[in-house]
Amino acid sequence: MNVLIVHAHPESKSFNGAMTAVAHRTLSTQGHTVTVSDLYRDGFKAVSDRGNFTGEVDPEFLKLQAEERFAAHNNGFSDELEQEISRLEAADLVIFQFPLWWFGFPAIMKGWVDRTFAAGRIYGGSPPYEGGRFRGRRALLSLTTGAPAEVYEADGMHGDLMGILRPIHRGILSFVGYDVLAPQVLCGAARVGEKAREDALEAWADRLTGIMNEAPIEIGRY
Amino acid sequence: MNVLIVHAHPESKSFNGAMTAVAHRTLSTQGHTVTVSDLYRDGFKAVSDRGNFTGEVDPEFLKLQAEERFAAHNNGFSDELEQEISRLEAADLVIFQFPLWWFGFPAIMKGWVDRTFAAGRIYGGSPPYEGGRFRGRRALLSLTTGAPAEVYEADGMHGDLMGILRPIHRGILSFVGYDVLAPQVLCGAARVGEKAREDALEAWADRLTGIMNEAPIEIGRY
Repeated sequence: MNVLIVHAHPESKSFNGAMTAVAHRTLSTQGHTVTVSDLYRDGFKAVSDRGNFTGEVDPEFLKLQAEERFAAHNNGFSDELEQEISRLEAADLVIFQFPLWWFGFPAIMKGWVDRTFAAGRIYGGSPPYEGGRFRGRRALLSLTTGAPAEVYEADGMHGDLMGILRPIHRGILSFVGYDVLAPQVLCGAARVGEKAREDALEAWADRLTGIMNEAPIEIGRY
Repeated sequence: MNVLIVHAHPESKSFNGAMTAVAHRTLSTQGHTVTVSDLYRDGFKAVSDRGNFTGEVDPEFLKLQAEERFAAHNNGFSDELEQEISRLEAADLVIFQFPLWWFGFPAIMKGWVDRTFAAGRIYGGSPPYEGGRFRGRRALLSLTTGAPAEVYEADGMHGDLMGILRPIHRGILSFVGYDVLAPQVLCGAARVGEKAREDALEAWADRLTGIMNEAPIEIGRY
């Protein structure tokens, strides 16, 4: 199995870094091929623009989707972007490891999606959702939050975490056909203490050992 | 009234560009002071990292929130970031003008929020939501979609647009206290035709004329 871990955290020694290291080690030990796209380390460019393309781009009016479709048929993506698209295409399982910032991805991870999920390559050749290109493959979000777990309950201050994640689960992952696995979450990562963080790393390793047999979750609309 | 328009589109001649131009002109004509943060034009840095700060940052372990709180008390934000934070602090009304990409902000706009909504300056001194720093002020999303309007109905393919926008409405705007006004939306902006786009620009100008008397919308949890 090919596994892609997309990792977004500005501090490599963070708990998110430890989660990615555990996933890398656990899955490699099981014989899987694991690739890590460490977006901060690699200085991944977050902003989708003309720099996505190597070929000639309409100088008068930039239409990103049209340029993506052209690039898809003419080997026209920048080297950095071609690498990420190829990694995505090769992956049977994609893990997004990130801290939840303002109820969503850090910008660098949103930019990875904006740029890598290119028209004509990752979507657009078939209907979305059930007809999506990655049907039968798996994706999951592994995240930390700053606030404690109780505020993400349905009646908590912020509201149900699954609702907060739904635009990502549905509008990004389900859209291109992935079976979505339950998110891996450590709430209040900076305040739960060292023991709880160690337990969370161990639970993550345990879960990954059986990840290919897990049933996907249902992602409702809204 | 001070109005801040945060604008994110890679093509200045786009319909999004026209929406921002109409807003700038309409609100200026009414005597308001209008500032535009045109993120693509200005090359705004999307990625939150050590570059946010001018002072010494812990070389061993980067904690962004702690560094933000320190910078807030020591005039320690980078010039680019200080400019954007000051614009946000001065604004009675903030308009976010953007194309909906993957059910969310383009990365450059998410990065503007990640970096500008700084701990110790924009939030953290009082409880969020009702206690948020910007209570009594107004914010709204003005956006285009690629897909047509019917897919964003509650029973449409993508599901209710208000659900899609809820993490932004609640997790970003309500969180810091804003009264959220109804989003301004043109679905299928590239396919509705020139007449419909012109009508949409006119409707936007009409709406802006009375924007200060509009009642905010209710943002439910999930």
